[in-house]
Amino acid sequence: MSEIIKARLRITCPDKPGIVAAVTNFLHSHGVNITDLDQHSTDAMGGVFFMRLEFYSENMAVIRPALESAFESVLGGPFEMDWQIDYTDRPRSVAILVSRFEHCLLELLWRWTRGELPCTISAVISNHADLKEAVERFGVPFHHVPVTAETKAEAETRILEVAGDPDLVVLARYMQVLSPEFVDRFPGRIINIHHSFLPAFAGADPYRQAQERGVKIIGATAHYVTAELDAGPIIEQDTARVTHRNSVEDFKDIGRDLERQVLARAVRWHLEDRIIAHNGRTMVFR
Amino acid sequence: MSEIIKARLRITCPDKPGIVAAVTNFLHSHGVNITDLDQHSTDAMGGVFFMRLEFYSENMAVIRPALESAFESVLGGPFEMDWQIDYTDRPRSVAILVSRFEHCLLELLWRWTRGELPCTISAVISNHADLKEAVERFGVPFHHVPVTAETKAEAETRILEVAGDPDLVVLARYMQVLSPEFVDRFPGRIINIHHSFLPAFAGADPYRQAQERGVKIIGATAHYVTAELDAGPIIEQDTARVTHRNSVEDFKDIGRDLERQVLARAVRWHLEDRIIAHNGRTMVFR
Amino acid sequence: MSEIIKARLRITCPDKPGIVAAVTNFLHSHGVNITDLDQHSTDAMGGVFFMRLEFYSENMAVIRPALESAFESVLGGPFEMDWQIDYTDRPRSVAILVSRFEHCLLELLWRWTRGELPCTISAVISNHADLKEAVERFGVPFHHVPVTAETKAEAETRILEVAGDPDLVVLARYMQVLSPEFVDRFPGRIINIHHSFLPAFAGADPYRQAQERGVKIIGATAHYVTAELDAGPIIEQDTARVTHRNSVEDFKDIGRDLERQVLARAVRWHLEDRIIAHNGRTMVFR
Amino acid sequence: MSEIIKARLRITCPDKPGIVAAVTNFLHSHGVNITDLDQHSTDAMGGVFFMRLEFYSENMAVIRPALESAFESVLGGPFEMDWQIDYTDRPRSVAILVSRFEHCLLELLWRWTRGELPCTISAVISNHADLKEAVERFGVPFHHVPVTAETKAEAETRILEVAGDPDLVVLARYMQVLSPEFVDRFPGRIINIHHSFLPAFAGADPYRQAQERGVKIIGATAHYVTAELDAGPIIEQDTARVTHRNSVEDFKDIGRDLERQVLARAVRWHLEDRIIAHNGRTMVFR
Repeated sequence: MSEIIKARLRITCPDKPGIVAAVTNFLHSHGVNITDLDQHSTDAMGGVFFMRLEFYSENMAVIRPALESAFESVLGGPFEMDWQIDYTDRPRSVAILVSRFEHCLLELLWRWTRGELPCTISAVISNHADLKEAVERFGVPFHHVPVTAETKAEAETRILEVAGDPDLVVLARYMQVLSPEFVDRFPGRIINIHHSFLPAFAGADPYRQAQERGVKIIGATAHYVTAELDAGPIIEQDTARVTHRNSVEDFKDIGRDLERQVLARAVRWHLEDRIIAHNGRTMVFR
Repeated sequence: MSEIIKARLRITCPDKPGIVAAVTNFLHSHGVNITDLDQHSTDAMGGVFFMRLEFYSENMAVIRPALESAFESVLGGPFEMDWQIDYTDRPRSVAILVSRFEHCLLELLWRWTRGELPCTISAVISNHADLKEAVERFGVPFHHVPVTAETKAEAETRILEVAGDPDLVVLARYMQVLSPEFVDRFPGRIINIHHSFLPAFAGADPYRQAQERGVKIIGATAHYVTAELDAGPIIEQDTARVTHRNSVEDFKDIGRDLERQVLARAVRWHLEDRIIAHNGRTMVFR
Repeated sequence: MSEIIKARLRITCPDKPGIVAAVTNFLHSHGVNITDLDQHSTDAMGGVFFMRLEFYSENMAVIRPALESAFESVLGGPFEMDWQIDYTDRPRSVAILVSRFEHCLLELLWRWTRGELPCTISAVISNHADLKEAVERFGVPFHHVPVTAETKAEAETRILEVAGDPDLVVLARYMQVLSPEFVDRFPGRIINIHHSFLPAFAGADPYRQAQERGVKIIGATAHYVTAELDAGPIIEQDTARVTHRNSVEDFKDIGRDLERQVLARAVRWHLEDRIIAHNGRTMVFR
Repeated sequence: MSEIIKARLRITCPDKPGIVAAVTNFLHSHGVNITDLDQHSTDAMGGVFFMRLEFYSENMAVIRPALESAFESVLGGPFEMDWQIDYTDRPRSVAILVSRFEHCLLELLWRWTRGELPCTISAVISNHADLKEAVERFGVPFHHVPVTAETKAEAETRILEVAGDPDLVVLARYMQVLSPEFVDRFPGRIINIHHSFLPAFAGADPYRQAQERGVKIIGATAHYVTAELDAGPIIEQDTARVTHRNSVEDFKDIGRDLERQVLARAVRWHLEDRIIAHNGRTMVFR
């Protein structure tokens, strides 16, 4: 759209009076314009404080180093802040892992083509070769990395080689469980789509589990991946009605549309620096 | 509304060709008018067959005995049917059990007053005395039956005494677990509202569990009560969005509105003979 | 819950750099604690700026006058602000107008009893006598003010006499059109529930209109009342699915539940000072 | 999946006792197996009767002519039925018209590739050349037929030439108004997606209209096209929440996902013979 560089500041710190005033003053005195500000306290009178700001400046490239250094000494240190500034001229690189189901992958690639996902896509990696052509059509490199129980460690090494050092790894219906070592390399930077309304129906074949339990609503959940399977911080969920007429196949059909939407929203919010994860939960500033 | 007696026929039987023709023929030849017909097969080519029909006749009271007896010999026996006919001139009696939270109870009483729930209410029974006045205002008998760990058996005996031999028992946020013996007396005739999207967050304090897990959607579930806690056939569910801003108290506020709606729908469908439970699941013919 | 007085500040002004810093500084320097802050600009680079803050102080009653006077001279004047501070120790008084349908009225009274609506209810006024007993049960004064085409002016005079000078007038399915003079007395302070998804089906009998058009979803809309019928700023809307099976009566049943929820949310947000109306639209800071 | 030919029978006729029995008997006596049956009466005691049945036979190809001819003489004539049988071995051909926005088109093509839309796609026709490559990638013929105010009649002639005599025409965000003559050629066989919750915001630029009105929910509507713009029978609608933060561009983003889903569902239901249109409304038997 425009050449203007926007910055997004995220802060986590102990709550105390005067933080908002101090931060907005600081930014105002550096001549930047705040275009969005959102904040949250875990407890109205104490607790942890979270804030997200968007701001821009005509000469961001010039002021950036001084601003960041001053921020740490004036605010970050004194307020014991965990803080981070990201800039729109440095789009993230994303690697997508996928198995055979293409719906989530294609949704992401299509939205990326449209400009809805501000990132580069460094690689699509699959343990099957089926989607090669579909991916390359988008001008994105495809890598086939087969995995078996025996070759898992090698496969993950190979994935790291071809992934292109991504900022974010997206599991777009990747049916292999990643090793703790792999997960540890990308803390808060792996997003998975699980095809149930977590914590219900964690684990394998959730649509079959849901149909057998006779639920009247199914769901999908996008979450950050942690060492514990399907237990990481939830980013987004959505649900849809089903009836006794719906077979497991119908659940998959209906669920597919949920999965596509939910994963795409989660990835977009991550790339727009809207998420702060804390204590196993997420704040999503929209 | 009208003096016309309607009948509702529910059938469960092994699926085989010709059932629909046989049943509709039978009813047509008895001079009744079918106003609604719904059916479901677990498998398009075999499996279990379910059907619900509504029909009426100008002289239902007269033909009823002959019709039921003929039905069994002509259809029920030969097709190995599990079948049941209910008539709108015999409204069910309902006993409501409640603890301290009044929202589900008041919703049911209010809808009942409006004529939305075709039943009589034989009693409201609570282990607390708080809601006595609110209930009696509706012209419904209220019974206070305290329960402690030691007096549970006696309390259940007392509940049975004052409940007035109800067709249906509704647990409108009744915070005591009923004994297996009590549950066995009302097979498929106890409806509970659980304040979560089951099977997620079964057990105690589901809103707190949900908030701690960081879900983005909460739910409520109405289900038939079986011996296993929170595991009976689900009748209805609904969900609502929450965000990181919402406290456990907010979850309860938002959830309260879900609970009221979900329980009221489930009770209504039961009273309208729209539900067939089978193998731990329900069919709801709407 | 607590004795602490909370204040809610709402601001509308031309957007320019430094507003957030100036306001939060001002409040911080007056020793109050900001517990919530939300803001919106109509245009990222110019336009109109809106802000809502919640703050509290141990000695609010003492500092209040000085704070308000200083706010005007330091911020209100210089920034050309349209601003307003409301305090939780001054609950609004609400008058409810209703005709024959009681569902919205009872929902409001019930939530008010539970403490969900922070207000006093000065009067319930109806052009029918039917709901007198139901209202008085809540300890709220009921006034029967009949209206005919000929007596409309007198009736409105009478309504004003018995309404008790309310801060807010809620039309809870009041089926009479108020005169422009009446509406003018309460600018931005009359909330109506319309039983359709506005702007579709404005005017009379919207459920019939909806059924005849064959819509697959119906809705309800809470809005501020202006001189033009059903055209005031929308506060809240919600929708529900219907099918070809649903009669107009079913639409009314389903819609009733929407109306109750939508109106209750709108009234609550108004009473919590969450709404800023501007140019025929509302911002709702939640 | 299987070689079995399924048939779908749709009936519209004056309601009278015995129709269901007569039809199911007839089919049973011809040795076919009914796998689904749904029906609806406009009035419980009189009015118009609608029915949809699915049935199959091992030797459908053989019995088809006799069955259809007998049906007309035994049932169609005597009951004054408007009836139609469609068979799954005769998939419909669909022509898609589109302008510049590709999201609805790609959704349809993607679902078609997956087998979710039982049809052939005879042609994609656009008044712009942009989407040629994207369409041809799916192995579907693309035709560029420019339209101006002066050349509209010729353009429509050209469209008819290249469309391949389709059973169904889908307007997947085709921004030209079709002439009444064109519409008349495809009665009940043109489906349009309108990007609003009809009847709200008919006509041009509905998202802008919606944003200016300040609605809190937006929608999309799939409907059959009739001579009157945006007034044909509604097939499916869906809605999504928006807030004051959302710009017109955001409305378009959010709406795009609604449009894709709503149009895809409507087209699928049409192709599965689930829809009966009557008096400007649709019954959708799902």
